Amino acid sequence: MEPTSTPPPAPTSPLIPLRSKFETVMPVRPDDIDMNQHVHNSRYFDYVLAARYDQMARCYRMPMETFLAHGFGWVVKTAHVQYKRALGLGDVMIVRTWIDAIVKDSVTVHFQILRQTNGKLCADGYFDYTMISLATGRGETIPGWIAEKYAV
Amino acid sequence: MEPTSTPPPAPTSPLIPLRSKFETVMPVRPDDIDMNQHVHNSRYFDYVLAARYDQMARCYRMPMETFLAHGFGWVVKTAHVQYKRALGLGDVMIVRTWIDAIVKDSVTVHFQILRQTNGKLCADGYFDYTMISLATGRGETIPGWIAEKYAV
Amino acid sequence: MEPTSTPPPAPTSPLIPLRSKFETVMPVRPDDIDMNQHVHNSRYFDYVLAARYDQMARCYRMPMETFLAHGFGWVVKTAHVQYKRALGLGDVMIVRTWIDAIVKDSVTVHFQILRQTNGKLCADGYFDYTMISLATGRGETIPGWIAEKYAV
Amino acid sequence: MEPTSTPPPAPTSPLIPLRSKFETVMPVRPDDIDMNQHVHNSRYFDYVLAARYDQMARCYRMPMETFLAHGFGWVVKTAHVQYKRALGLGDVMIVRTWIDAIVKDSVTVHFQILRQTNGKLCADGYFDYTMISLATGRGETIPGWIAEKYAV
Repeated sequence: MEPTSTPPPAPTSPLIPLRSKFETVMPVRPDDIDMNQHVHNSRYFDYVLAARYDQMARCYRMPMETFLAHGFGWVVKTAHVQYKRALGLGDVMIVRTWIDAIVKDSVTVHFQILRQTNGKLCADGYFDYTMISLATGRGETIPGWIAEKYAV
Repeated sequence: MEPTSTPPPAPTSPLIPLRSKFETVMPVRPDDIDMNQHVHNSRYFDYVLAARYDQMARCYRMPMETFLAHGFGWVVKTAHVQYKRALGLGDVMIVRTWIDAIVKDSVTVHFQILRQTNGKLCADGYFDYTMISLATGRGETIPGWIAEKYAV
Repeated sequence: MEPTSTPPPAPTSPLIPLRSKFETVMPVRPDDIDMNQHVHNSRYFDYVLAARYDQMARCYRMPMETFLAHGFGWVVKTAHVQYKRALGLGDVMIVRTWIDAIVKDSVTVHFQILRQTNGKLCADGYFDYTMISLATGRGETIPGWIAEKYAV
Repeated sequence: MEPTSTPPPAPTSPLIPLRSKFETVMPVRPDDIDMNQHVHNSRYFDYVLAARYDQMARCYRMPMETFLAHGFGWVVKTAHVQYKRALGLGDVMIVRTWIDAIVKDSVTVHFQILRQTNGKLCADGYFDYTMISLATGRGETIPGWIAEKYAV
């Protein structure tokens, strides 16, 4: 995965701080292709997951290991994927993600998956994550110092 | 997959014909479990896919092969999954699906995934599918005789 | 997975105690099919894994959980798979496995995967497993009481 | 996947032409990790497949598409994998493959998977492939012009 990043757009209002969009470049693997000769629908979830792991470490400077070390984890509450154009064998994609809302114990992560050769949108959507305490398995209010990491 | 089915509830209005809910019973496979010791999020998508293939053939009497033989295919436009309780190693699930809307070239399939031992809801959501012509790759108005098959 | 089992064949020699062959019945899932319209080669590994989990609990009366509770785990050292006939969409298979050698810290598990409708052999091979101590991560001599469980 | 390649070692005999070893660099994806916190055993198979697709196009100048255009395909007859050290989350690997024998309709592809950071061997083994005619599904003698492509 080769890192790239897009600077955050100019904020349109001081009340709505906009957050950076980050990008991860990844190849389609042959085992991702299904009987329809396209990337299997469920693999788009996995591409976003891979991009988030990459970007947590590289862009937010807070890899999953740090969350775990603090006794925190993330669970997906909702996944929403809109399929626009199928990726196929040999394709390389850009997975762009950004956070738009941090509310109590939850974060919404938006994503777009683009074909690298022409920049066309192949899929977009969002994931709602809840931060949990690993000890209790229950949602935990996201502390200020983590929200700040995510404020870039 | 052991077949079971729920009879359709009594229609509440002659204007809103309610459709049957069908069920497929499936085991979690060990390769479905991820590093968090639960079924990997994207596998729920595959469970619904497996249930639909089973139910298309067994419940609607129109297996995917029949669609293909008529030059039709299905593509997913939107996937929406809400995670409630994680499935784990050794679990057996019931995947219940039903159709609520057929509009032009599209069908909305709702689903619930329940743990078999206690009937608790583990995930629910919906998939929007578009019927395409395999020749053109474009959406095709769903003909009456197919809509009728889906009217059970 | 519906359980079935084959009684062990009559021993041909008192010096070579033969072990039972056990069987697990499983369906191919649509997400197992790859771009060649057949079950993806690597999924056969996963079918054998699923059959072993089932058979450890059901046939050897010693589920993986018991191994873990004793501080033991299993790691694969060698996988050898011979592909004879491809499984495809809608197929149901029988996964037959048996142990032939327990040597110090290792067990060889043989397998055959058969198409259920006609009993034809689709794949066979073996896996060498090493029993490890979870505490050290190193191979551990298989104790007599475990070898006995496996002597059925 | 970033390309690299190793020049072929000096031949030890004019009768045994040695072939080049090619390398593909790939990251572990989070969805490759299983409940044991390591790359799932069957994914090593997929890594070798991905490396071969890359190397067929980039190193042998004969991508899979060219085989298909000539009416040829490849099927795996035997897979043999020896696991040495587990790959884990965040690892980047080098997948090195080379051909050692072309006999009639078959090719043996050897592989090694190395951890990029320290060059340690994580897995090795081989795959026997048969070239088939897509029209008949049967093994086809590998023509001279293809064998030559593979003689680099």
